[in-house]
Amino acid sequence: MANPTAAMLVIGDEILSGRTQDANTHHLAQELTKTGIDLREVRVVPDVQSEIVDAVNALRRKYTHVFTSGGIGPTHDDITADSIAAAFGVPIGVRADARDLLASNYAGGTADLTEARLRMARIPEGARLIVNAISKAPGFSMENVHVMAGVPAIFVVMLESLLPDLTHGQPVLSRTIRLDVPESQVAETLADIAQAFPDLSIGSYPFSMYGKYGTNIVVRGTDKALVDDAAMAVNVAFDEAVNVD
Amino acid sequence: MANPTAAMLVIGDEILSGRTQDANTHHLAQELTKTGIDLREVRVVPDVQSEIVDAVNALRRKYTHVFTSGGIGPTHDDITADSIAAAFGVPIGVRADARDLLASNYAGGTADLTEARLRMARIPEGARLIVNAISKAPGFSMENVHVMAGVPAIFVVMLESLLPDLTHGQPVLSRTIRLDVPESQVAETLADIAQAFPDLSIGSYPFSMYGKYGTNIVVRGTDKALVDDAAMAVNVAFDEAVNVD
Repeated sequence: MANPTAAMLVIGDEILSGRTQDANTHHLAQELTKTGIDLREVRVVPDVQSEIVDAVNALRRKYTHVFTSGGIGPTHDDITADSIAAAFGVPIGVRADARDLLASNYAGGTADLTEARLRMARIPEGARLIVNAISKAPGFSMENVHVMAGVPAIFVVMLESLLPDLTHGQPVLSRTIRLDVPESQVAETLADIAQAFPDLSIGSYPFSMYGKYGTNIVVRGTDKALVDDAAMAVNVAFDEAVNVD
Repeated sequence: MANPTAAMLVIGDEILSGRTQDANTHHLAQELTKTGIDLREVRVVPDVQSEIVDAVNALRRKYTHVFTSGGIGPTHDDITADSIAAAFGVPIGVRADARDLLASNYAGGTADLTEARLRMARIPEGARLIVNAISKAPGFSMENVHVMAGVPAIFVVMLESLLPDLTHGQPVLSRTIRLDVPESQVAETLADIAQAFPDLSIGSYPFSMYGKYGTNIVVRGTDKALVDDAAMAVNVAFDEAVNVD
Protein backbone atom coordinates (compact mmCIF):
# COMPACT_ATOMS: atom_id res chain seq x y z
CA MET A 1 0.00 0.00 0.00
CA ALA A 2 1.26 3.47 -0.80
CA ASN A 3 2.37 5.64 2.11
CA PRO A 4 0.09 8.42 3.39
CA THR A 5 0.91 11.80 1.85
CA ALA A 6 1.30 15.21 3.42
CA ALA A 7 1.71 18.91 2.76
CA MET A 8 3.21 21.60 4.97
CA LEU A 9 1.68 25.07 5.11
CA VAL A 10 3.88 27.73 6.70
CA ILE A 11 1.92 30.83 7.68
CA GLY A 12 3.83 34.02 8.25
CA ASP A 13 4.89 37.35 6.79
CA GLU A 14 8.21 37.03 8.62
CA ILE A 15 9.32 34.14 6.41
CA LEU A 16 8.30 35.93 3.19
CA SER A 17 10.06 39.15 4.20
CA GLY A 18 13.30 37.30 4.88
CA ARG A 19 13.32 38.34 8.53
CA THR A 20 13.18 34.72 9.69
CA GLN A 21 14.33 31.52 8.02
CA ASP A 22 11.75 28.75 8.29
CA ALA A 23 13.17 25.80 10.22
CA ASN A 24 9.94 23.87 10.83
CA THR A 25 9.64 22.46 7.31
CA HIS A 26 13.05 20.83 7.47
CA HIS A 27 12.27 19.29 10.86
CA LEU A 28 8.87 18.06 9.68
CA ALA A 29 10.39 16.59 6.49
CA GLN A 30 12.90 14.59 8.51
CA GLU A 31 10.32 13.30 11.00
CA LEU A 32 7.81 12.33 8.30
CA THR A 33 10.48 10.43 6.37
CA LYS A 34 11.15 8.36 9.49
CA THR A 35 7.46 7.57 9.98
CA GLY A 36 6.63 6.73 6.37
CA ILE A 37 4.47 9.75 5.59
CA ASP A 38 5.47 11.27 2.24
CA LEU A 39 5.80 15.05 2.30
CA ARG A 40 4.72 16.04 -1.21
CA GLU A 41 4.34 19.81 -1.12
CA VAL A 42 5.17 22.87 0.95
CA ARG A 43 3.58 26.29 0.74
CA VAL A 44 4.39 29.52 2.54
CA VAL A 45 1.62 32.14 2.62
CA PRO A 46 1.30 35.54 4.32
CA ASP A 47 -0.88 36.44 7.32
CA VAL A 48 -3.89 37.03 5.07
CA GLN A 49 -7.06 35.05 5.76
CA SER A 50 -8.12 34.47 2.14
CA GLU A 51 -4.66 33.15 1.25
CA ILE A 52 -4.64 30.78 4.22
CA VAL A 53 -8.17 29.54 3.48
CA ASP A 54 -7.40 28.90 -0.19
CA ALA A 55 -4.19 27.04 0.58
CA VAL A 56 -5.75 24.92 3.35
CA ASN A 57 -8.68 23.94 1.15
CA ALA A 58 -6.47 23.08 -1.82
CA LEU A 59 -4.05 21.02 0.25
CA ARG A 60 -6.45 19.17 2.57
CA ARG A 61 -8.33 17.74 -0.42
CA LYS A 62 -5.16 16.61 -2.15
CA TYR A 63 -3.13 15.01 0.66
CA THR A 64 -3.76 12.65 3.57
CA HIS A 65 -2.44 15.23 6.05
CA VAL A 66 -1.76 18.96 6.14
CA PHE A 67 0.56 20.35 8.81
CA THR A 68 0.59 24.09 9.47
CA SER A 69 2.97 26.26 11.47
CA GLY A 70 2.54 29.81 12.67
CA GLY A 71 -0.12 32.33 13.56
CA ILE A 72 -1.64 30.79 16.70
CA GLY A 73 -0.31 33.28 19.30
CA PRO A 74 -2.17 36.00 21.20
CA THR A 75 -1.66 39.02 18.93
CA HIS A 76 -3.69 40.73 16.20
CA ASP A 77 -1.62 39.13 13.41
CA ASP A 78 -2.34 35.59 14.68
CA ILE A 79 -5.25 34.65 12.43
CA THR A 80 -4.62 30.96 11.73
CA ALA A 81 -7.33 29.48 13.99
CA ASP A 82 -10.00 31.78 12.53
CA SER A 83 -8.79 31.01 9.02
CA ILE A 84 -9.03 27.25 9.63
CA ALA A 85 -12.57 27.67 10.96
CA ALA A 86 -13.41 29.68 7.85
CA ALA A 87 -11.84 27.04 5.58
CA PHE A 88 -14.03 24.33 7.14
CA GLY A 89 -17.08 26.58 7.51
CA VAL A 90 -17.42 25.91 11.26
CA PRO A 91 -17.82 28.29 14.23
CA ILE A 92 -14.91 29.13 16.52
CA GLY A 93 -14.87 30.18 20.17
CA VAL A 94 -13.03 29.80 23.47
CA ARG A 95 -13.16 26.15 24.51
CA ALA A 96 -13.15 25.14 28.18
CA ASP A 97 -10.47 22.44 27.95
CA ALA A 98 -8.15 24.70 25.96
CA ARG A 99 -8.77 27.55 28.43
CA ASP A 100 -7.92 25.28 31.38
CA LEU A 101 -4.70 24.13 29.75
CA LEU A 102 -3.77 27.73 29.09
CA ALA A 103 -4.58 28.82 32.65
CA SER A 104 -2.23 26.14 33.99
CA ASN A 105 0.65 28.12 32.49
CA TYR A 106 0.04 31.21 34.65
CA ALA A 107 0.62 31.69 38.38
CA GLY A 108 -2.82 33.18 38.85
CA GLY A 109 -4.58 30.51 36.78
CA THR A 110 -7.80 31.56 35.06
CA ALA A 111 -7.60 35.02 36.67
CA ASP A 112 -4.49 35.71 34.57
CA LEU A 113 -6.29 34.98 31.30
CA THR A 114 -6.51 38.39 29.68
CA GLU A 115 -8.51 38.86 26.51
CA ALA A 116 -5.32 38.50 24.46
CA ARG A 117 -4.31 35.26 26.16
CA LEU A 118 -7.82 33.86 25.76
CA ARG A 119 -7.40 34.19 22.00
CA MET A 120 -5.08 31.17 22.30
CA ALA A 121 -8.01 29.06 23.62
CA ARG A 122 -10.18 29.75 20.58
CA ILE A 123 -10.63 26.40 18.81
CA PRO A 124 -12.73 25.64 15.71
CA GLU A 125 -15.75 23.44 16.49
CA GLY A 126 -14.97 19.75 16.17
CA ALA A 127 -11.19 20.03 16.46
CA ARG A 128 -8.99 17.83 18.66
CA LEU A 129 -6.31 19.53 20.79
CA ILE A 130 -2.58 18.99 20.25
CA VAL A 131 -0.59 19.09 23.48
CA ASN A 132 2.02 21.83 23.92
CA ALA A 133 4.42 20.63 26.60
CA ILE A 134 6.26 23.96 26.70
CA SER A 135 3.89 26.89 26.99
CA LYS A 136 0.61 24.94 27.26
CA ALA A 137 -1.34 26.93 24.60
CA PRO A 138 -2.54 23.99 22.50
CA GLY A 139 -2.48 23.37 18.78
CA PHE A 140 -5.35 21.44 17.21
CA SER A 141 -6.27 18.98 14.48
CA MET A 142 -9.32 19.81 12.39
CA GLU A 143 -10.05 16.63 10.38
CA ASN A 144 -6.76 16.08 8.50
CA VAL A 145 -5.31 19.55 9.14
CA HIS A 146 -2.86 19.78 12.05
CA VAL A 147 -2.34 23.31 13.32
CA MET A 148 0.86 23.99 15.23
CA ALA A 149 2.94 26.89 16.52
CA GLY A 150 5.58 28.72 14.51
CA VAL A 151 8.13 28.96 17.34
CA PRO A 152 10.45 26.06 16.45
CA ALA A 153 10.83 24.62 19.96
CA ILE A 154 7.05 24.48 20.34
CA PHE A 155 6.50 23.12 16.83
CA VAL A 156 8.87 20.27 17.72
CA VAL A 157 7.02 19.23 20.90
CA MET A 158 3.60 19.55 19.28
CA LEU A 159 4.68 17.34 16.39
CA GLU A 160 6.11 14.86 18.87
CA SER A 161 2.76 14.59 20.63
CA LEU A 162 0.81 14.42 17.35
CA LEU A 163 2.78 11.94 15.24
CA PRO A 164 2.09 8.75 17.25
CA ASP A 165 -1.65 9.27 16.62
CA LEU A 166 -1.32 9.32 12.83
CA THR A 167 -1.32 6.23 10.64
CA HIS A 168 2.25 5.59 9.62
CA GLY A 169 3.51 4.11 6.38
CA GLN A 170 6.75 2.36 5.63
CA PRO A 171 9.77 4.50 6.57
CA VAL A 172 11.70 5.70 3.55
CA LEU A 173 15.24 4.36 3.65
CA SER A 174 18.10 6.04 1.89
CA ARG A 175 21.70 5.34 0.93
CA THR A 176 24.07 8.12 -0.05
CA ILE A 177 27.08 7.45 -2.25
CA ARG A 178 29.63 10.19 -2.82
CA LEU A 179 31.37 10.35 -6.20
CA ASP A 180 34.38 12.60 -6.53
CA VAL A 181 33.53 13.57 -10.12
CA PRO A 182 31.24 16.27 -11.54
CA GLU A 183 27.58 15.47 -12.02
CA SER A 184 27.78 15.66 -15.81
CA GLN A 185 30.21 12.71 -15.86
CA VAL A 186 27.83 10.42 -14.02
CA ALA A 187 24.58 11.45 -15.67
CA GLU A 188 24.29 8.82 -18.40
CA THR A 189 25.22 5.80 -16.30
CA LEU A 190 23.00 7.03 -13.51
CA ALA A 191 20.03 7.39 -15.84
CA ASP A 192 20.46 3.71 -16.78
CA ILE A 193 20.53 2.68 -13.13
CA ALA A 194 17.44 4.81 -12.38
CA GLN A 195 15.64 3.09 -15.25
CA ALA A 196 16.57 -0.32 -13.87
CA PHE A 197 15.01 0.57 -10.49
CA PRO A 198 11.69 2.24 -11.35
CA ASP A 199 10.33 1.79 -7.79
CA LEU A 200 13.16 3.83 -6.24
CA SER A 201 13.89 7.52 -6.30
CA ILE A 202 17.51 8.04 -7.37
CA GLY A 203 18.70 11.62 -7.06
CA SER A 204 21.97 13.27 -7.87
CA TYR A 205 23.25 16.33 -6.00
CA PRO A 206 26.34 18.21 -7.15
CA PHE A 207 28.63 19.86 -4.63
CA SER A 208 31.97 21.59 -4.63
CA MET A 209 34.51 21.34 -1.86
CA TYR A 210 37.96 22.91 -1.82
CA GLY A 211 37.51 23.81 -5.49
CA LYS A 212 36.82 20.22 -6.61
CA TYR A 213 33.45 19.10 -7.91
CA GLY A 214 31.66 16.00 -6.70
CA THR A 215 28.23 14.43 -6.76
CA ASN A 216 26.18 12.77 -4.06
CA ILE A 217 23.93 9.99 -5.31
CA VAL A 218 20.95 9.37 -3.05
CA VAL A 219 18.93 6.19 -3.44
CA ARG A 220 15.57 6.22 -1.65
CA GLY A 221 12.76 3.73 -1.22
CA THR A 222 10.80 1.66 1.28
CA ASP A 223 12.20 -1.75 0.29
CA LYS A 224 15.58 -2.24 1.97
CA ALA A 225 16.77 -5.02 -0.34
CA LEU A 226 15.97 -2.95 -3.41
CA VAL A 227 17.68 0.14 -1.97
CA ASP A 228 20.77 -1.93 -1.19
CA ASP A 229 20.76 -3.42 -4.70
CA ALA A 230 20.63 0.00 -6.30
CA ALA A 231 23.37 1.33 -4.02
CA MET A 232 25.48 -1.67 -5.05
CA ALA A 233 24.80 -0.91 -8.72
CA VAL A 234 26.07 2.65 -8.17
CA ASN A 235 29.18 1.31 -6.45
CA VAL A 236 29.88 -1.13 -9.26
CA ALA A 237 29.37 1.50 -11.95
CA PHE A 238 31.72 4.10 -10.46
CA ASP A 239 35.26 3.49 -9.26
CA GLU A 240 35.16 6.70 -7.24
CA ALA A 241 32.20 5.63 -5.11
CA VAL A 242 32.43 6.33 -1.38
CA ASN A 243 29.51 5.08 0.72
CA VAL A 244 28.58 7.95 3.01
CA ASP A 245 25.55 6.61 4.85
CA MET B 1 1.88 52.39 -7.06
CA ALA B 2 1.94 49.00 -5.40
CA ASN B 3 5.19 47.04 -5.52
CA PRO B 4 5.59 44.17 -8.00
CA THR B 5 4.77 40.78 -6.46
CA ALA B 6 6.59 37.48 -6.61
CA ALA B 7 6.42 33.79 -5.79
CA MET B 8 9.24 31.31 -5.26
CA LEU B 9 8.97 27.74 -6.54
CA VAL B 10 11.51 25.33 -5.12
CA ILE B 11 11.79 22.15 -7.17
CA GLY B 12 13.32 19.11 -5.54
CA ASP B 13 12.68 15.82 -3.81
CA GLU B 14 15.72 16.44 -1.60
CA ILE B 15 13.98 19.30 0.21
CA LEU B 16 10.77 17.32 0.74
CA SER B 17 12.64 14.28 2.04
CA GLY B 18 14.50 16.39 4.60
CA ARG B 19 17.88 15.51 3.11
CA THR B 20 18.62 19.15 2.34
CA GLN B 21 17.37 22.35 3.95
CA ASP B 22 16.33 24.93 1.38
CA ALA B 23 18.47 28.06 1.71
CA ASN B 24 17.52 29.79 -1.55
CA THR B 25 14.12 31.01 -0.40
CA HIS B 26 15.58 32.90 2.54
CA HIS B 27 18.22 34.52 0.33
CA LEU B 28 15.64 35.47 -2.29
CA ALA B 29 13.29 36.89 0.37
CA GLN B 30 16.03 39.15 1.70
CA GLU B 31 17.11 40.35 -1.76
CA LEU B 32 13.54 41.02 -2.91
CA THR B 33 12.79 43.02 0.24
CA LYS B 34 15.76 45.28 -0.59
CA THR B 35 14.59 45.82 -4.16
CA GLY B 36 10.92 46.43 -3.40
CA ILE B 37 9.50 43.24 -4.91
CA ASP B 38 7.00 41.64 -2.51
CA LEU B 39 7.47 37.90 -2.07
CA ARG B 40 3.90 36.69 -1.52
CA GLU B 41 4.08 32.91 -1.72
CA VAL B 42 6.52 30.00 -1.71
CA ARG B 43 5.90 26.47 -2.91
CA VAL B 44 8.10 23.40 -2.81
CA VAL B 45 7.18 20.59 -5.22
CA PRO B 46 8.81 17.26 -6.08
CA ASP B 47 10.68 16.35 -9.29
CA VAL B 48 7.42 15.44 -11.04
CA GLN B 49 6.57 17.23 -14.28
CA SER B 50 2.80 17.56 -13.72
CA GLU B 51 3.38 19.09 -10.27
CA ILE B 52 5.91 21.58 -11.64
CA VAL B 53 3.66 22.53 -14.56
CA ASP B 54 0.61 23.04 -12.34
CA ALA B 55 2.53 25.17 -9.84
CA VAL B 56 4.23 27.29 -12.53
CA ASN B 57 0.95 27.97 -14.28
CA ALA B 58 -0.87 28.85 -11.07
CA LEU B 59 1.88 31.17 -9.86
CA ARG B 60 2.83 32.95 -13.09
CA ARG B 61 -0.75 34.10 -13.58
CA LYS B 62 -1.06 35.37 -10.02
CA TYR B 63 2.22 37.24 -9.46
CA THR B 64 4.44 39.69 -11.36
CA HIS B 65 7.39 37.32 -11.11
CA VAL B 66 8.03 33.65 -10.37
CA PHE B 67 11.51 32.54 -9.33
CA THR B 68 12.38 28.85 -9.43
CA SER B 69 15.34 26.94 -8.02
CA GLY B 70 16.50 23.43 -8.76
CA GLY B 71 16.35 20.78 -11.43
CA ILE B 72 18.45 22.33 -14.21
CA GLY B 73 21.50 20.08 -14.01
CA PRO B 74 22.66 17.31 -16.37
CA THR B 75 21.03 14.24 -14.80
CA HIS B 76 17.83 12.27 -15.41
CA ASP B 77 16.06 13.88 -12.43
CA ASP B 78 16.65 17.41 -13.77
CA ILE B 79 13.33 18.05 -15.48
CA THR B 80 12.72 21.73 -14.79
CA ALA B 81 13.51 23.12 -18.27
CA ASP B 82 11.23 20.58 -19.96
CA SER B 83 8.51 21.28 -17.41
CA ILE B 84 8.69 25.03 -18.05
CA ALA B 85 8.44 24.43 -21.81
CA ALA B 86 5.41 22.22 -21.15
CA ALA B 87 3.84 24.86 -18.88
CA PHE B 88 4.15 27.47 -21.66
CA GLY B 89 3.35 25.04 -24.48
CA VAL B 90 6.55 25.84 -26.40
CA PRO B 91 9.23 23.56 -27.91
CA ILE B 92 12.59 23.04 -26.20
CA GLY B 93 15.97 22.16 -27.66
CA VAL B 94 19.70 22.80 -27.41
CA ARG B 95 20.34 26.47 -28.15
CA ALA B 96 23.60 27.64 -29.76
CA ASP B 97 24.35 30.51 -27.35
CA ALA B 98 23.66 28.33 -24.31
CA ARG B 99 25.84 25.56 -25.78
CA ASP B 100 28.70 28.00 -26.38
CA LEU B 101 28.50 29.32 -22.82
CA LEU B 102 28.54 25.78 -21.53
CA ALA B 103 31.50 24.79 -23.73
CA SER B 104 33.52 27.68 -22.30
CA ASN B 105 33.51 25.84 -18.96
CA TYR B 106 35.43 22.82 -20.29
CA ALA B 107 39.08 22.53 -21.31
CA GLY B 108 38.17 20.82 -24.56
CA GLY B 109 35.37 23.25 -25.40
CA THR B 110 32.51 21.92 -27.53
CA ALA B 111 34.28 18.56 -27.89
CA ASP B 112 33.76 18.02 -24.15
CA LEU B 113 30.00 18.45 -24.42
CA THR B 114 28.66 14.98 -23.77
CA GLU B 115 24.99 14.26 -24.22
CA ALA B 116 24.43 14.73 -20.48
CA ARG B 117 26.17 18.12 -20.43
CA LEU B 118 24.24 19.23 -23.51
CA ARG B 119 21.06 18.78 -21.50
CA MET B 120 22.08 21.96 -19.69
CA ALA B 121 21.91 23.91 -22.99
CA ARG B 122 18.30 22.94 -23.64
CA ILE B 123 16.26 26.16 -23.43
CA PRO B 124 12.52 26.64 -24.05
CA GLU B 125 11.80 28.65 -27.21
CA GLY B 126 11.58 32.37 -26.55
CA ALA B 127 13.46 32.37 -23.23
CA ARG B 128 16.22 34.81 -22.28
CA LEU B 129 19.39 33.41 -20.69
CA ILE B 130 20.44 34.18 -17.11
CA VAL B 131 24.20 34.37 -16.67
CA ASN B 132 25.89 31.84 -14.38
CA ALA B 133 29.25 33.31 -13.39
CA ILE B 134 30.33 30.14 -11.61
CA SER B 135 29.79 27.06 -13.74
CA LYS B 136 28.53 28.78 -16.94
CA ALA B 137 25.43 26.55 -17.47
CA PRO B 138 22.83 29.30 -17.79
CA GLY B 139 19.45 29.76 -16.19
CA PHE B 140 16.69 31.40 -18.20
CA SER B 141 13.66 33.67 -17.99
CA MET B 142 10.54 32.54 -19.83
CA GLU B 143 8.20 35.56 -19.77
CA ASN B 144 7.87 36.27 -16.02
CA VAL B 145 9.29 32.93 -14.82
CA HIS B 146 12.96 33.01 -13.84
CA VAL B 147 14.57 29.59 -13.74
CA MET B 148 17.70 29.22 -11.64
CA ALA B 149 19.93 26.54 -10.17
CA GLY B 150 19.36 24.81 -6.85
CA VAL B 151 23.01 24.88 -5.73
CA PRO B 152 22.96 27.89 -3.38
CA ALA B 153 26.20 29.51 -4.59
CA ILE B 154 24.96 29.40 -8.19
CA PHE B 155 21.46 30.57 -7.24
CA VAL B 156 23.08 33.61 -5.61
CA VAL B 157 25.10 34.66 -8.69
CA MET B 158 22.21 34.01 -11.07
CA LEU B 159 19.89 36.16 -8.97
CA GLU B 160 22.58 38.85 -8.83
CA SER B 161 22.72 38.95 -12.63
CA LEU B 162 18.93 38.84 -13.00
CA LEU B 163 17.68 41.37 -10.43
CA PRO B 164 18.99 44.57 -12.05
CA ASP B 165 16.88 43.77 -15.15
CA LEU B 166 13.60 43.58 -13.24
CA THR B 167 11.41 46.55 -12.44
CA HIS B 168 11.95 47.41 -8.81
CA GLY B 169 9.45 48.83 -6.36
CA GLN B 170 9.99 50.75 -3.17
CA PRO B 171 12.25 48.90 -0.74
CA VAL B 172 10.42 47.71 2.34
CA LEU B 173 11.89 49.32 5.44
CA SER B 174 11.62 47.75 8.86
CA ARG B 175 12.20 48.68 12.47
CA THR B 176 12.51 46.05 15.18
CA ILE B 177 11.73 46.83 18.81
CA ARG B 178 12.47 44.26 21.48
CA LEU B 179 10.16 44.06 24.48
CA ASP B 180 11.27 42.03 27.46
CA VAL B 181 7.75 40.83 28.23
CA PRO B 182 5.72 37.89 26.90
CA GLU B 183 3.70 38.39 23.74
CA SER B 184 0.35 38.04 25.54
CA GLN B 185 1.11 41.16 27.63
CA VAL B 186 1.62 43.37 24.59
CA ALA B 187 -1.17 42.03 22.40
CA GLU B 188 -3.94 44.50 23.18
CA THR B 189 -1.88 47.68 22.99
CA LEU B 190 -0.19 46.42 19.86
CA ALA B 191 -3.52 45.73 18.16
CA ASP B 192 -4.47 49.38 18.78
CA ILE B 193 -1.20 50.59 17.25
CA ALA B 194 -1.67 48.29 14.24
CA GLN B 195 -5.14 49.71 13.73
CA ALA B 196 -3.76 53.25 13.83
CA PHE B 197 -1.29 52.42 11.04
CA PRO B 198 -3.33 50.47 8.47
CA ASP B 199 -0.72 50.98 5.72
CA LEU B 200 2.01 49.24 7.70
CA SER B 201 2.55 45.61 8.57
CA ILE B 202 3.13 45.29 12.32
CA GLY B 203 4.17 41.83 13.43
CA SER B 204 4.93 40.37 16.82
CA TYR B 205 7.39 37.51 17.32
CA PRO B 206 7.79 35.80 20.69
CA PHE B 207 11.15 34.45 21.77
CA SER B 208 12.66 32.97 24.89
CA MET B 209 16.20 33.55 26.02
CA TYR B 210 17.80 32.26 29.21
CA GLY B 211 14.36 31.12 30.36
CA LYS B 212 12.78 34.58 30.03
CA TYR B 213 10.13 35.38 27.50
CA GLY B 214 10.26 38.40 25.23
CA THR B 215 8.64 39.74 22.07
CA ASN B 216 10.10 41.36 18.99
CA ILE B 217 7.84 43.92 17.36
CA VAL B 218 8.59 44.43 13.68
CA VAL B 219 7.16 47.42 11.86
CA ARG B 220 7.36 47.23 8.06
CA GLY B 221 6.39 49.53 5.23
CA THR B 222 7.68 51.55 2.31
CA ASP B 223 7.12 55.01 3.85
CA LYS B 224 10.03 55.82 6.15
CA ALA B 225 8.24 58.58 8.08
CA LEU B 226 5.28 56.31 8.76
CA VAL B 227 7.51 53.43 9.83
CA ASP B 228 9.36 55.77 12.21
CA ASP B 229 6.07 57.09 13.62
CA ALA B 230 4.80 53.59 14.34
CA ALA B 231 8.12 52.58 15.92
CA MET B 232 7.85 55.67 18.10
CA ALA B 233 4.30 54.69 19.08
CA VAL B 234 5.59 51.27 20.18
CA ASN B 235 8.36 52.93 22.20
CA VAL B 236 5.92 55.28 23.91
CA ALA B 237 3.48 52.47 24.72
CA PHE B 238 5.97 50.13 26.32
CA ASP B 239 8.49 51.04 29.01
CA GLU B 240 10.53 47.95 28.21
CA ALA B 241 11.13 48.89 24.57
CA VAL B 242 14.65 48.39 23.23
CA ASN B 243 15.27 49.51 19.65
CA VAL B 244 17.17 46.71 17.96
CA ASP B 245 17.45 47.89 14.36
